[in-house]
Amino acid sequence: MKRKVTLKQIAKELDVSISTVSKSLRNSKEIGEDTREKVQAFAKLYNYKPNNIALSLKNRKTRTIGIMIPEIVHHFFSKVIRGIELIANKRGYNVIVGLSNESFDKEVINMEMLANGSIDGFILSISKETLLQQDYHHFHETINQGMPIVMFDRVVNEVNCDKVIVDDFQGSKKAINKLINSGCKNIAIITTKDYVNVGKLRTQGYLQALEENQIPAKASLILKVDDRLVSEDHLEALEQEIEQLFKQNKKLDGVFAVNELYAITAMKVARKFKKKIPEDIQFIGYTDGVLSKHATPSLTTISQHGQKIGEKAADLLIDKLEKDSEDDSYQTVIIETELIERESTK
Amino acid sequence: MKRKVTLKQIAKELDVSISTVSKSLRNSKEIGEDTREKVQAFAKLYNYKPNNIALSLKNRKTRTIGIMIPEIVHHFFSKVIRGIELIANKRGYNVIVGLSNESFDKEVINMEMLANGSIDGFILSISKETLLQQDYHHFHETINQGMPIVMFDRVVNEVNCDKVIVDDFQGSKKAINKLINSGCKNIAIITTKDYVNVGKLRTQGYLQALEENQIPAKASLILKVDDRLVSEDHLEALEQEIEQLFKQNKKLDGVFAVNELYAITAMKVARKFKKKIPEDIQFIGYTDGVLSKHATPSLTTISQHGQKIGEKAADLLIDKLEKDSEDDSYQTVIIETELIERESTK
Repeated sequence: MKRKVTLKQIAKELDVSISTVSKSLRNSKEIGEDTREKVQAFAKLYNYKPNNIALSLKNRKTRTIGIMIPEIVHHFFSKVIRGIELIANKRGYNVIVGLSNESFDKEVINMEMLANGSIDGFILSISKETLLQQDYHHFHETINQGMPIVMFDRVVNEVNCDKVIVDDFQGSKKAINKLINSGCKNIAIITTKDYVNVGKLRTQGYLQALEENQIPAKASLILKVDDRLVSEDHLEALEQEIEQLFKQNKKLDGVFAVNELYAITAMKVARKFKKKIPEDIQFIGYTDGVLSKHATPSLTTISQHGQKIGEKAADLLIDKLEKDSEDDSYQTVIIETELIERESTK
Repeated sequence: MKRKVTLKQIAKELDVSISTVSKSLRNSKEIGEDTREKVQAFAKLYNYKPNNIALSLKNRKTRTIGIMIPEIVHHFFSKVIRGIELIANKRGYNVIVGLSNESFDKEVINMEMLANGSIDGFILSISKETLLQQDYHHFHETINQGMPIVMFDRVVNEVNCDKVIVDDFQGSKKAINKLINSGCKNIAIITTKDYVNVGKLRTQGYLQALEENQIPAKASLILKVDDRLVSEDHLEALEQEIEQLFKQNKKLDGVFAVNELYAITAMKVARKFKKKIPEDIQFIGYTDGVLSKHATPSLTTISQHGQKIGEKAADLLIDKLEKDSEDDSYQTVIIETELIERESTK
């Protein structure tokens, strides 16, 4: 019997990107006519079936929510999933999880697969590669076909849907104001490259807080770490970058890190340089995970309330799914961050 | 149009368990005739469609692996998923994840949902409730219908399938021998209740190692923690239980904990009692997660090689999926544990 051909196989066979195949099949004018025709002919020949999401939606409800996240070894995302599950259970829904692994192609493929009759709607956080490529056609198509999406944390203005975000800008300001009020004069930020929106907003909050306190910003105090160093597997390279930061700023007395791994690693570097925490140097992290709580000294942090984000996202999605009438209005819910004070600050 | 009724809805409507519905639909003699007839009539009336897994398997390959795990906020399971993903990507498969939340019902419901055309086979670790109830009919049925299962970590002899396990018994022995060789004379184990097989095996390894070293085991040194205390939300109750252990054993000089949260919490208790680590008391944990690596002092641990377990499980499953002939032989692969020495032991 004939196997069903997938987007991925068509892309490989014709040596074009998955995005190109997907757009060609929807007859998008973005793709040259030649390519479009080739893709469509191939798809027809091999019996490719595009999702008939709208159709499946009318025929049955799966009462299942599809979650798409960039990675699973991540405390924040696990907390969000826990929040989604809590509400889903309460309201009689199941949850399945797809992983993009920060890859655009995997995001498209897995969303296609899940949308194909397995789920009623998506809760998702966008992969880094998708943010870099700024190709959001798969979100638009999913929504256009009648399947609602709720985005959280990593969201984009270009897609019209319900969103749950953290006030990263204010959260960052809270952290810097706390450091300034505790006597810090030379505050560094350890952040990610700018294309990850949350990193960018946190950097902006840092700059704004400095400005409001008449402290001039210095380029040498802003460390934008290569994203690949977020992973557990590259701790040494991360440590070296932070050591450079310490060497270039002898008077460093405060560090704000946009995730807890950066903060914990920076505390380790401080110990290496014989600086006492919090006497000589103070630290604040972002995301209240297990590392922050169990670190010695325990880490003062900005909590994003991952579970609350998940709960809110699930409620938004299920509300939309259970509303009888078509409703084209969307809302963006902002979850407040909270400063959790522990031993790493005065 | 008629909505598709689910197992869960039938169970709720008729006020019986999901397991009863599932067994009745398969006409299992375990269920009384009355109940069976009632369930079957209801299912027919509301157009319930049982999985036709075998059928869907013949029609198409999804090239997707379904993972069922008990919980997601767990470093070991995340590492296993990473391993599965690595191999799946290499061999052209996708991965989706379902969560049982340690609940039998959710395990049955989610497996049913995933098996319904979304995936080609399962990699799974059994929920605690399923282990307690010893009801494995959903695994048997999945396998009987031609969909392969690979179990890892929490496995049972009653189900015939490929399995990937850790030598928990030997791993535990390694830990205790290390403590004994480093001079410990009063070694406690902090473990889980026995129905979780891995906890039981680790306790047995502890007892065996003591015996081989002519050290008599003492009941007061074996702390079997209530499972609900594994969660981050019950740290205080866990701490109190461990404080009792310390109070009852003034000469305590070694602690082996079957997971890293227990170990980290025990180190915290030791600091409270002004005991120096590793001078006065030494600690070894199980599972090499972020907490162990970043604890102060860093924690000596038995690594289960979660990623390797995932890789092996994925290879076993994909091998089975891609074999043309029906193959009824199964293997159990044992992944060796490794002692990773850090600062919490001499």
